[in-house]
Amino acid sequence: MKYGYFDDRRKEYVIQTPDTPLPWINYLGSNQFFSLLSNTGGGYSFYRDAKLRRITRYRYNNVPNDIGSRFFYIKDQDEIWSPCYKPVKSKLDYYSCRHGMGYSIISGSRNSIVASITFFVPLKDNCELQHVTLTNEGDSKKSFDLFGVVEWCLWNAVDDAANYQRNLSIGEVEVENSVVYHKSEYRERRNHYGFYSVNADTCGFDTNRDSFLGADKDWSLPDRVRSGQSTDSIASGWYPIASHQISISLEPGETKELVFILGYIENEKNDKWDSPNKINKTKAKEMISKYESLSSVNKAFSELAGYWEDLLSNYQVHSALPQLDRMVNIWNQYQCMATFNMSRSASYYETGTGRGMGFRDSCQDLLGFVHMIPEQARERIIDIASIQFEDGSTYHQYQPLTKQGNADIGGGFNDDPLWLIGCTTAYIRETGDMSILDEMVPFNNVKGTEKPLLEHLKRSVYYTINHKGPHNLPLIGRADWNDCLNLNCFSEEPGESFQTCENIDNKKAESIFIGAMFVKYAGEYADLCSRLGNTEEADYVNKEIQKMTEAIETSGWDGSWFLRAYDSYGDPVGSHICEEGQIYIEPQGFCVMAGIGIQNGNAKKALDSVEERLTTPYGIQLLNPCYTKYHINLGEITSYPPGYKENGGIFCHNNPWVSIAHTVIGQRNEAFESYKRISPAFTEEISDIHRTEPYVYSQMIAGREAPNYGEAKNSWLTGTASWSFVNVSQFILGIRADYDGLRIEPCLPDELNEITIIREFRDARFNIHINNRKTGKIQIMVDGEKIKGTLIPLIENKKLYTVEVDV
Amino acid sequence: MKYGYFDDRRKEYVIQTPDTPLPWINYLGSNQFFSLLSNTGGGYSFYRDAKLRRITRYRYNNVPNDIGSRFFYIKDQDEIWSPCYKPVKSKLDYYSCRHGMGYSIISGSRNSIVASITFFVPLKDNCELQHVTLTNEGDSKKSFDLFGVVEWCLWNAVDDAANYQRNLSIGEVEVENSVVYHKSEYRERRNHYGFYSVNADTCGFDTNRDSFLGADKDWSLPDRVRSGQSTDSIASGWYPIASHQISISLEPGETKELVFILGYIENEKNDKWDSPNKINKTKAKEMISKYESLSSVNKAFSELAGYWEDLLSNYQVHSALPQLDRMVNIWNQYQCMATFNMSRSASYYETGTGRGMGFRDSCQDLLGFVHMIPEQARERIIDIASIQFEDGSTYHQYQPLTKQGNADIGGGFNDDPLWLIGCTTAYIRETGDMSILDEMVPFNNVKGTEKPLLEHLKRSVYYTINHKGPHNLPLIGRADWNDCLNLNCFSEEPGESFQTCENIDNKKAESIFIGAMFVKYAGEYADLCSRLGNTEEADYVNKEIQKMTEAIETSGWDGSWFLRAYDSYGDPVGSHICEEGQIYIEPQGFCVMAGIGIQNGNAKKALDSVEERLTTPYGIQLLNPCYTKYHINLGEITSYPPGYKENGGIFCHNNPWVSIAHTVIGQRNEAFESYKRISPAFTEEISDIHRTEPYVYSQMIAGREAPNYGEAKNSWLTGTASWSFVNVSQFILGIRADYDGLRIEPCLPDELNEITIIREFRDARFNIHINNRKTGKIQIMVDGEKIKGTLIPLIENKKLYTVEVDV
Repeated sequence: MKYGYFDDRRKEYVIQTPDTPLPWINYLGSNQFFSLLSNTGGGYSFYRDAKLRRITRYRYNNVPNDIGSRFFYIKDQDEIWSPCYKPVKSKLDYYSCRHGMGYSIISGSRNSIVASITFFVPLKDNCELQHVTLTNEGDSKKSFDLFGVVEWCLWNAVDDAANYQRNLSIGEVEVENSVVYHKSEYRERRNHYGFYSVNADTCGFDTNRDSFLGADKDWSLPDRVRSGQSTDSIASGWYPIASHQISISLEPGETKELVFILGYIENEKNDKWDSPNKINKTKAKEMISKYESLSSVNKAFSELAGYWEDLLSNYQVHSALPQLDRMVNIWNQYQCMATFNMSRSASYYETGTGRGMGFRDSCQDLLGFVHMIPEQARERIIDIASIQFEDGSTYHQYQPLTKQGNADIGGGFNDDPLWLIGCTTAYIRETGDMSILDEMVPFNNVKGTEKPLLEHLKRSVYYTINHKGPHNLPLIGRADWNDCLNLNCFSEEPGESFQTCENIDNKKAESIFIGAMFVKYAGEYADLCSRLGNTEEADYVNKEIQKMTEAIETSGWDGSWFLRAYDSYGDPVGSHICEEGQIYIEPQGFCVMAGIGIQNGNAKKALDSVEERLTTPYGIQLLNPCYTKYHINLGEITSYPPGYKENGGIFCHNNPWVSIAHTVIGQRNEAFESYKRISPAFTEEISDIHRTEPYVYSQMIAGREAPNYGEAKNSWLTGTASWSFVNVSQFILGIRADYDGLRIEPCLPDELNEITIIREFRDARFNIHINNRKTGKIQIMVDGEKIKGTLIPLIENKKLYTVEVDV
Repeated sequence: MKYGYFDDRRKEYVIQTPDTPLPWINYLGSNQFFSLLSNTGGGYSFYRDAKLRRITRYRYNNVPNDIGSRFFYIKDQDEIWSPCYKPVKSKLDYYSCRHGMGYSIISGSRNSIVASITFFVPLKDNCELQHVTLTNEGDSKKSFDLFGVVEWCLWNAVDDAANYQRNLSIGEVEVENSVVYHKSEYRERRNHYGFYSVNADTCGFDTNRDSFLGADKDWSLPDRVRSGQSTDSIASGWYPIASHQISISLEPGETKELVFILGYIENEKNDKWDSPNKINKTKAKEMISKYESLSSVNKAFSELAGYWEDLLSNYQVHSALPQLDRMVNIWNQYQCMATFNMSRSASYYETGTGRGMGFRDSCQDLLGFVHMIPEQARERIIDIASIQFEDGSTYHQYQPLTKQGNADIGGGFNDDPLWLIGCTTAYIRETGDMSILDEMVPFNNVKGTEKPLLEHLKRSVYYTINHKGPHNLPLIGRADWNDCLNLNCFSEEPGESFQTCENIDNKKAESIFIGAMFVKYAGEYADLCSRLGNTEEADYVNKEIQKMTEAIETSGWDGSWFLRAYDSYGDPVGSHICEEGQIYIEPQGFCVMAGIGIQNGNAKKALDSVEERLTTPYGIQLLNPCYTKYHINLGEITSYPPGYKENGGIFCHNNPWVSIAHTVIGQRNEAFESYKRISPAFTEEISDIHRTEPYVYSQMIAGREAPNYGEAKNSWLTGTASWSFVNVSQFILGIRADYDGLRIEPCLPDELNEITIIREFRDARFNIHINNRKTGKIQIMVDGEKIKGTLIPLIENKKLYTVEVDV
């Protein structure tokens, strides 16, 4: 069952009912001001940091759910309704929500009044614009009141929900004309304030939540809306809001437009005040006046559209499968940008108050956005590398504001260092910019410790070489990619973090997964060394890779699939001899991606085992059989009920690895099946089962053993986005940036006979047409000339490559 | 305006409308299981620790407000209503809430059905009992459905509201007969579970919140109640609840009674399971079977009444002022027990997720409950002293579960050490138990560092002696009693804690308040030394006290009042030469309490200044004039808007000090006026202005400069409770425990002509009758014999003292 449809021309998903199974959201903002916005108007805004600079208030896990922080009401005589359906929830004659690229348009109508609100964050200003269009589609004149309301957060989202002793006494506002200024704590150390304005005269306002809501204290029917009479309340402590009441008259057929601005302003410390206790509003007034006219609002909207057009234009496919095209051309890339902007901080499942940027998350996310924003990717690589320690190990997370490693969680996740190589080579392949390897980068952000980035990569490689266990496989540390497989944890304390608790480290617990990572990424490092002429280093590392490959083949093979690990007792994890958790997905995908087992047939055997034991119609489960008991030697993975999360859920992030693995051994159709199973556009029809948004990936889909089999959770902020894009764009469609040119190695399924791809790469445009003749061989013509191999070499100043491919 | 009345005979406050200005709450529980319960059924339950072992879910600062975590619904044909008014909020024909000692009875009726629910936590079991009585007062038979519902918290209240990635996948329940067992995380490291049962057959249940609530997801009208048809849902992840649906038929005049139990059970680690994945329910079934019968429920209720009767019987007054009697005999003592049980952890203003036990809070709270529970007071003194450091300084807080000092907040609050003396001497005076001074107590909980408690008191005294500033006054450190006067902080970073930030410590900032504390409490220490025969130590300390008194008289006197402090520049704080904050309340009360300025008339001058500059009809403000700007050298106090909290709010905790000071200089009527101004029972008539509960003290009442002048905040968990009880019981009524007997020094206002007091003291009962002849002299007859002075010496084995007092 679907709840809407894709409008590909407008790059929108159109939701046709407010009753989606869960709130279906969009992200607004591309720079410093961000908003989360659900299809019924829920969500919140923040400036740069979702914890420390929360602008509006939102309550997670609330009942009634997803109410806040912006509210629109129409009071039309005795009828009260919301154009976004919520919070009033009066039945609408018409409803739609169009989630587009950095904007959403929510429309509702009732009794011949049509209200449509376009929400977006302009590229150049720290504000959310709410462009309201009101039309009288009836035969008689309509007079009604519109209320636009926001609820302020007292800046720090954690304190805001905890420190009531203080909070209930600090709220302060100013009101001037049609603007409410939120200035809590501005009197003391803050030099920023928020404002909510409307470009019209108001007939009343409220800034005190209880005055606005009245006795029932319910957003669904505030007293002030019911009575149609604002109280012009001035908040003093408690819960400051901003409500504007505007009287509207519309002749039949008439349309009026209003612009509300939710803005954020910073002043210089010595320029905070206009007069005693009156804040300096100069910058706010500039912003308000800038968007006073509709033409400037429309211009800002066009600029935003142009921005996204540019970003997405670097990779465009045209095929006979609209689902494929819309994922590749629009939504998958769009989601990759969301992971760039948010990392894992703020979604409807991540409160924005918890963790910083993950080391491995950021490295992997980058694979999905590097082709769109290479300069910002470069910056991020330097930030990430700066939290590496001198021994090659790394902090597991860092704070985006301070860029310091997060000491609370610390390090000890032994896969982390190797990911740095993967993102660095991806950046260089995309841009050709080898100079990044010479960039001086500190260790642990300590001044004076700077070494070239290449040295950081080397330390990553040597960290693994120097930390091996009894089977010559890499020690796992606190965990590898699978944060929940905690082999040195042995936690007995309820609520204790499995990630930070480390009770033993007897140098026994080993990870085959890290072994495979080593083969892949140390290989990329060795390749870099060769390119830089350091063949001695390349040879040495290649020998180490050979040793690791042998170790995996000797001690990491279970007979029909790759083992997952050895625990601290030296017992295998993910083996047929285990009672539960006999096979894990990660090493199957990653070993084959790294080229292990290709020649001896183990690769195929492993993927056959995945098909047989892990694959479901909704995707590939992480392991099988699920753990039904807590295994203290395995950690958090066994703490989840069977079928959820890492305990046998379909943890989507690793599904593309299997799909890529299929391409590696030429299983074209299997690769594409695997891709489609978790691809949102391809699974749109089962939106009622997945329940999350059908335009973005979710982190997890409940596995076969879960009562809610097939139900997805944690949409948006997941590494699934980048790996899926890597999979489809580089391996299935097969267009890969490479050091010396563009590599074309499609691995198309039977159902795709022909595709064209436009790829902007290093200042040139590649128009690629591929005929899928299912030959298994690749023949490439560039501008009418056949080339050898699959790499299109770059020719200086050449701006256009016309490429014809037969496969 | 009032919203109810005191029922003194039943020791209840009876609320007659659900529309109180704020939720008016009660505490249930006296041992390990606690519940907060508002007059409309809101609140939540926890076991021992409100953060780590939260049993049911409650959302602070929510809209609609105060909904959760227990819900009752009656579906009577098409009528749906809640006996507690919320969550349905249907109009009731009758409503009342009786908050009593450890229980509350909420009753509602509609359409001739009367539902009354008695909520209490029995003394001996970890559960909340909900005893529901349903009566048909109509003329015809009634058939309707009752729903009893709770929403589970996933144990750790902070994670529960933050870690959705994990939370949404871990919820698990079992259902058996009429019991829902909540067992999230029991499969792994927890060995505790919750349950919700009813002693009746149910006609349906739900454990999945969304299944119960349906599309609108609103507690006010769940789909399952609207349809009258439960779905027997089994929660798997998301939001587990427990809903029981019971069909009821009542003949005219008939009454039925049901008992719901919200229970908490711990199992031994090796005895967790009945069978695979089925929890061991033995203990739950024992508890359920224990309260199966109404007689055992009624018995438990009687035991609870007896418990409170016992506690309160130690101090009872009978006067012509019912407000006085009900505060002294019932509510003030009751509130003191709440501060014993909760410290500052869980109220409607304290989320229960933040801080531990405060050092100085706990010392002061003890003054109010030591006469009721001396053994527990003794234990607490040892706990508190154990977080003192060897140099005499202390941690500022400790965690009740671990009893370790809280390293996050640390120490450096230079008043802390001296409070230890105050609570220790209070304990000894009450009990005569000098042996506590020999108790071996560690420093900072380090084994092997144990010294007798007396040595800890000594270190407290010497810490002040050794930490003085340029005026020979005590250095203030991070803050003294006034946590918001931060003279070494100089914070410029928004959101930074003023208490933990310490930028400079140039040994200049001094506190006159700590000076006064020193005079008082070092005096008590010297007195103890004399009693123990160590006159040398007593003499030395008395000389130090003399020096301190001189320093205060020389450098702490501003001409008409006592200065508050010197800041880090050496400039006075709380002086007429200051632009803002010219006079502070704390030193005026405490200096006079310590006996400073009595002889030279400064005491009276200071109290006159308080009257003139700080006193309002709602109580005495903390300072005047309020700070309108942020003063970086003064810290948090200047961060509040004028009139709130420490910035010129009526910070009730310190009002009793002024009242006591009045008694010290014989201002009988002024003392009582000061007492009455903030006393809840005396201010019941202005409940609409105060807005908080009229039966307990609030921490703060907004001062004259605040827009919401007179509005109270943060009721229940405030040191105001203990100090007010000390003030009224020991100074105004004048019955004071002393080392060698009971001291009788009434300081009665003119309006009290005669009172009787019953005081249980050291195994004897004192029946005291006082005639207030306003003579200023005290004459005491004990059992018909006149005694010298004001101390009634104790006679061994004497069980009854009949005391006649003329003043």
